[in-house]
Amino acid sequence: MRDCISSKTRTEKQYTTIEGEKMIYLDNAATTQIAPEVLDAMRPYLEEEYGNPGSLHPMGQTAARAIIHARQQVAELLDCDPHEIVFTSGGAEGNNSVFAGLRRHLFDEGRTHIIISAVEHDSVRRAAKALEKDGFTVSELGVDCNGRVLVDDLKQLITDETGLISVMLVNNELGTTNPIKEIVKIIDDAPVLLHVDCVQAAGCAPLSLRDIGCDYATVSSHKMHGPKGVGALYIKKNAPFEPLIYGGAEQEYGLRGGTPNVAGIVGFGKACEVADIGRDWLSVSNVKRYFYNKLMEDRAAAENITVNADSLNHVGKVLNLKVNGVDAQSLVLYLASLGVCISAGSACRSHELEPSRTLTAIGLTPDEARSSVRFSFSKYNTQEEIVEAAKLVATAIKDLKGV
Amino acid sequence: MRDCISSKTRTEKQYTTIEGEKMIYLDNAATTQIAPEVLDAMRPYLEEEYGNPGSLHPMGQTAARAIIHARQQVAELLDCDPHEIVFTSGGAEGNNSVFAGLRRHLFDEGRTHIIISAVEHDSVRRAAKALEKDGFTVSELGVDCNGRVLVDDLKQLITDETGLISVMLVNNELGTTNPIKEIVKIIDDAPVLLHVDCVQAAGCAPLSLRDIGCDYATVSSHKMHGPKGVGALYIKKNAPFEPLIYGGAEQEYGLRGGTPNVAGIVGFGKACEVADIGRDWLSVSNVKRYFYNKLMEDRAAAENITVNADSLNHVGKVLNLKVNGVDAQSLVLYLASLGVCISAGSACRSHELEPSRTLTAIGLTPDEARSSVRFSFSKYNTQEEIVEAAKLVATAIKDLKGV
Repeated sequence: MRDCISSKTRTEKQYTTIEGEKMIYLDNAATTQIAPEVLDAMRPYLEEEYGNPGSLHPMGQTAARAIIHARQQVAELLDCDPHEIVFTSGGAEGNNSVFAGLRRHLFDEGRTHIIISAVEHDSVRRAAKALEKDGFTVSELGVDCNGRVLVDDLKQLITDETGLISVMLVNNELGTTNPIKEIVKIIDDAPVLLHVDCVQAAGCAPLSLRDIGCDYATVSSHKMHGPKGVGALYIKKNAPFEPLIYGGAEQEYGLRGGTPNVAGIVGFGKACEVADIGRDWLSVSNVKRYFYNKLMEDRAAAENITVNADSLNHVGKVLNLKVNGVDAQSLVLYLASLGVCISAGSACRSHELEPSRTLTAIGLTPDEARSSVRFSFSKYNTQEEIVEAAKLVATAIKDLKGV
Repeated sequence: MRDCISSKTRTEKQYTTIEGEKMIYLDNAATTQIAPEVLDAMRPYLEEEYGNPGSLHPMGQTAARAIIHARQQVAELLDCDPHEIVFTSGGAEGNNSVFAGLRRHLFDEGRTHIIISAVEHDSVRRAAKALEKDGFTVSELGVDCNGRVLVDDLKQLITDETGLISVMLVNNELGTTNPIKEIVKIIDDAPVLLHVDCVQAAGCAPLSLRDIGCDYATVSSHKMHGPKGVGALYIKKNAPFEPLIYGGAEQEYGLRGGTPNVAGIVGFGKACEVADIGRDWLSVSNVKRYFYNKLMEDRAAAENITVNADSLNHVGKVLNLKVNGVDAQSLVLYLASLGVCISAGSACRSHELEPSRTLTAIGLTPDEARSSVRFSFSKYNTQEEIVEAAKLVATAIKDLKGV
């Protein structure tokens, strides 16, 4: 175990909150801590190097150079050309930019049919649905019991009016990876554009946009130990696009206006550079299995827990578990009181009472969905934390079930 | 002088760049340095308090509370209700949100005529112009020789189809303040919505949205010693609006999706709290006059400089000067080599060869516009810097003119 989980002992400060509570953070699909080397890279741009990259003077040009460097770092992680990268304020902006940015083009082309998967993030789903008011129709591509899109069904869904398909690479609740290259094969030479939400994939699994062959892809910094408020949209060379946010014609190749968030962009670039895919990825998958095995040592846990969507075996950070007879929200709150941070689904829907759309899409009943929780790990989780968390989860299950 | 310019001596670090050059920064309309107390407020949220405000656990709730607090700080500065504040990624997003967010509403109402002033920022101008492809028409309201909108002309421009008027409060190149309350009076009870770009006003001049009575207003953090990548859109209670960025239905009252940029929002809130309007505002206006007077002590400067648009007498940080027979871009670059940061216009158009649209709108010839430069001051400029900058500007003018 020592080999695959970071043996670095976190300092007291790292997991003590403002309130002075020690927390074990297993909610890394919601957001992640900024890596220390990322914060170090950002610091000068939060302090003395505050120039506007649009300015001609040295302070502006220092900022402009920092953005060029960050763009190269992002492009290297994603395996694409730096000119295909547009910096955004995050995943939601990236996803929305694709739908809003293709509205007029698709309408003019008479291609007003859009296909999204049944388990897309709300920012994709709602952006697509918003276009229905403009005369678009949106179809949903179903998923199997593991949350993987049913590629064979896609052939039936595509019509002469289909203009855009949007399918996520890695699911935010289940960790399932979709067969994007199979989708690309089905589209073949048809004039259908493909967007891939890579927010949960980038920095967690090897990712080559050149290899995948999609037209647009969205990534977000704060899901991969970069700062919040920054992300990138990949726009394949020559792919049609109108800006979501207009501004200075020189900003982001004229595709995204606004003074760039220099410190955030520098941090995101550094996060891409230090993602060190191979190591983190294997490590995080191992942390996940280690936690699960520790948890299964408890009889009550073993008897009541089912792995959803084969998430234990997916590469990456997400483990989705159904806990028989336990209300997920109660488990989240009870564990929170014990110092363990997990979630009952995506963070942006945490307050909703309806069951997860993703979990019902893979065939869970509403009651089963309401008994499911998501654990998501990071390279910063220590062995000590994982052992402690497994014990606390087992305790919480027993307490909530009264056994 | 000691009374009106901060006597605090800046440390070496504050005006030494990565390259080790000492710079005197007089480009505060392009962007500003983050105030030390703002960075202190942000730090915990860049370090240990990295929770997603959508999460139910304590780390999420700490972030959620921080955002509630920041929203109150912003609302207090702007004199509005916190529920009327939506956090954005900055001024460009705020401005674009109004145009894109009213597109369907105005179209359905048959109010597809929009009026903007002739000197609006590119993010307003281009967002408005983009709607022309959707069947909208855009009219421009002219300005006088000081860049102030011609309110009497507005009456003639408004038709039964006018749905939206967008006029900036303080001009980014000239510092001129527009008579928004007079515009509100002209609109009166007509069903015309009013947006005010307050990006250059907030934190620089007293500002009460309650008093102004507009429907939408845009502000940006980095123009007022807050971090880049964050801003706010004021949406008056019950004003129509559709999100530019869809995401979790619970984020920003369902009006702006995406994981909030917690550290940025906290910093923006703090920047609003410490803006300390009265003092900074008077101080910055005085710094401007002091610089101008020092500059005029040089005969060559005095003989060749004309103040554009009465900017010397406007409240706030901007001083726009025409330097007879000197190319503005050459002056900017030459001063940069001497360690003084200024600009020839707005930062987001710094590389364009065409003369400033704002300067030609106030009646300057293209040649006069190409000889005009913008100085913009902050409370962090020391007396020593200002004296030095005035000397260097005079030297640069003489060198460039060969006198």
